[in-house]
Amino acid sequence: MTPTPASARSLSAPRIAVDVMGGDGGLEAVLGGVERALRADRSLRFLLVGDEAAIASRLERMSLPAGSATILHAADSIAGDEKPSQALRRARTTSMGLAINAVKDGSADAALSGGNTGALMAMSKLALRTMPGIDRPALTALLPTLGSHDCVMLDLGANTECDAQNLVQFAVMGAAYARTVLGLKKPRVKLLNIGTEELKGTGELKEAAALLREATYLHLTFDGFTEGDQLSRGKVDVVVTDGFSGNIALKTAEGTARFVTDLLRRAFTSSLRSKAGFALSKPALHMLKVHLDPNNHNGAVFLGLNGLVVKSHGGANTKGVANAIAVAARMVRGDIVNQVVSDLDEFRAHAFAVSE
Amino acid sequence: MTPTPASARSLSAPRIAVDVMGGDGGLEAVLGGVERALRADRSLRFLLVGDEAAIASRLERMSLPAGSATILHAADSIAGDEKPSQALRRARTTSMGLAINAVKDGSADAALSGGNTGALMAMSKLALRTMPGIDRPALTALLPTLGSHDCVMLDLGANTECDAQNLVQFAVMGAAYARTVLGLKKPRVKLLNIGTEELKGTGELKEAAALLREATYLHLTFDGFTEGDQLSRGKVDVVVTDGFSGNIALKTAEGTARFVTDLLRRAFTSSLRSKAGFALSKPALHMLKVHLDPNNHNGAVFLGLNGLVVKSHGGANTKGVANAIAVAARMVRGDIVNQVVSDLDEFRAHAFAVSE
Repeated sequence: MTPTPASARSLSAPRIAVDVMGGDGGLEAVLGGVERALRADRSLRFLLVGDEAAIASRLERMSLPAGSATILHAADSIAGDEKPSQALRRARTTSMGLAINAVKDGSADAALSGGNTGALMAMSKLALRTMPGIDRPALTALLPTLGSHDCVMLDLGANTECDAQNLVQFAVMGAAYARTVLGLKKPRVKLLNIGTEELKGTGELKEAAALLREATYLHLTFDGFTEGDQLSRGKVDVVVTDGFSGNIALKTAEGTARFVTDLLRRAFTSSLRSKAGFALSKPALHMLKVHLDPNNHNGAVFLGLNGLVVKSHGGANTKGVANAIAVAARMVRGDIVNQVVSDLDEFRAHAFAVSE
Repeated sequence: MTPTPASARSLSAPRIAVDVMGGDGGLEAVLGGVERALRADRSLRFLLVGDEAAIASRLERMSLPAGSATILHAADSIAGDEKPSQALRRARTTSMGLAINAVKDGSADAALSGGNTGALMAMSKLALRTMPGIDRPALTALLPTLGSHDCVMLDLGANTECDAQNLVQFAVMGAAYARTVLGLKKPRVKLLNIGTEELKGTGELKEAAALLREATYLHLTFDGFTEGDQLSRGKVDVVVTDGFSGNIALKTAEGTARFVTDLLRRAFTSSLRSKAGFALSKPALHMLKVHLDPNNHNGAVFLGLNGLVVKSHGGANTKGVANAIAVAARMVRGDIVNQVVSDLDEFRAHAFAVSE
């Protein structure tokens, strides 16, 4: 099949539909993020979806470049605890549903929301459907590392069980994300496992490893298995896993980082002396805070659909929202959807040639 | 079935067979740990398995209570990178194999080794076989938390795939471990999942949850699902999971803790000012170090066999080895094997009564 020509979409001036009502920081954080993103990149175009009066009133106090934003009124929004099945029925009246729909009808190149992840995944999947060659979409996000850039990880919870073909597709999608968002030429991809020896792990993992090892024509370097303790070492660009293990790993990493920083806080407040030590070390410790701040790694994406949907952290501040917008813009400009389609076409062509 | 009477074993003076050749710290760390454990508990009895001359020479410089230790010569030891299949063939000549065999022939109540985990699991399983009512043994360990005690977690890698019955058996074993080692009356048990709602996760998890919810007569409180970010919050006593997810979670937690402390080290050494701050905070930061030191959470165990085998961290120091010995002694005194057998008998009796 022939990928859609990139020129059909507005690659130079990405149009992003933003669910202004999604996220714990409300309209303030989201519109602040839009303003910040526009300061860094004036070519962006926004469709702001949400309560028209509230958005208009906030925009009056902002100085966005002329023509950079349009408002699309949505009377309603999806609640944080709303079940995906309920949310699906409200796709036509909610800010989240209308933002996704803007991608579907071509009036936007990507949608962004900080709302309910389950609802966002369900609505996106139903509206946009999976890309040709992809059986299941995957939730993809960035993890902080000791290295020079974040590590891309997928799937983080969209699919509880995955077969070898799903994992290969995730590898292709994750590599495309690393190329367009992190700017890496040929990302190093590893499969998450419970050991690095070839014999370790499930049958699905061993089969996926064998397929990826053969597929040297793909725009990635497959480098075998990795383990949970290597995720933050900065020695792998893309970590591929099923959604169950990926979600467990992501949440365990978040929980452990909070655990250690909680212990650190206890230590620093345990005596007058340590409080003084803290005051002295504060500028240096700021580095630690910046490194671990989820706002600096914002921009998870639901990859594998016929359109881009970016999930911003619910608690993102203006910087976090601006970072997620930048991720969306890079994916639009990098034409990630067609990159994945063409890589998978090549994978199937080779597999077919081999089986003949 | 009737459990073996506890009196048949030496519950008051646990006899522990120690693989003196296993672990990175060598004979020094292991025998130092034995000495330390004996200082805390003079009723312990040891069978020290390894090179006789080397052990005897080291014992001469120690002051162990008379009659507290016997040497069993082993000419050989299992290498750290040796394949389990190879190790199995050397069960009769190696210190690890002979220590396990001492449990099998009744000359010890528990074996302890800091050597190759895969080899230890394979040799233990072959020599001791699984307990009545247990289909698969599970690697069980302690995780540090913000609460007043560690959290017990299993399986950490012995079984890549597990069904609902396996998970129920792990819950029973983990609760017995929490009762005997942590001294908790009725431990709170949760299943590791990717959400806390009843509908989340795999079929195996949902079925295991349903079985545990019914089994109110067990000596544990089943409290539904938990997620990876809750492991270190101190709000759950036992976390049950399949060996694949458990291994991913454990290693991700270890890797993230190291990641954050590495960032912290970078921060403290980044300027003269922060170095001074570090010097001032050092006594307080020592608390953090103690809390995260694996030596203070040492004593993983391969539960579900007809005999106790404790895995000490490869890098454990004398304190770590002494802690692992204390865990072994508590399990012997608490008669954990028979506790698990009787809990599982009750579980099957109820399940049978229900199905009639």
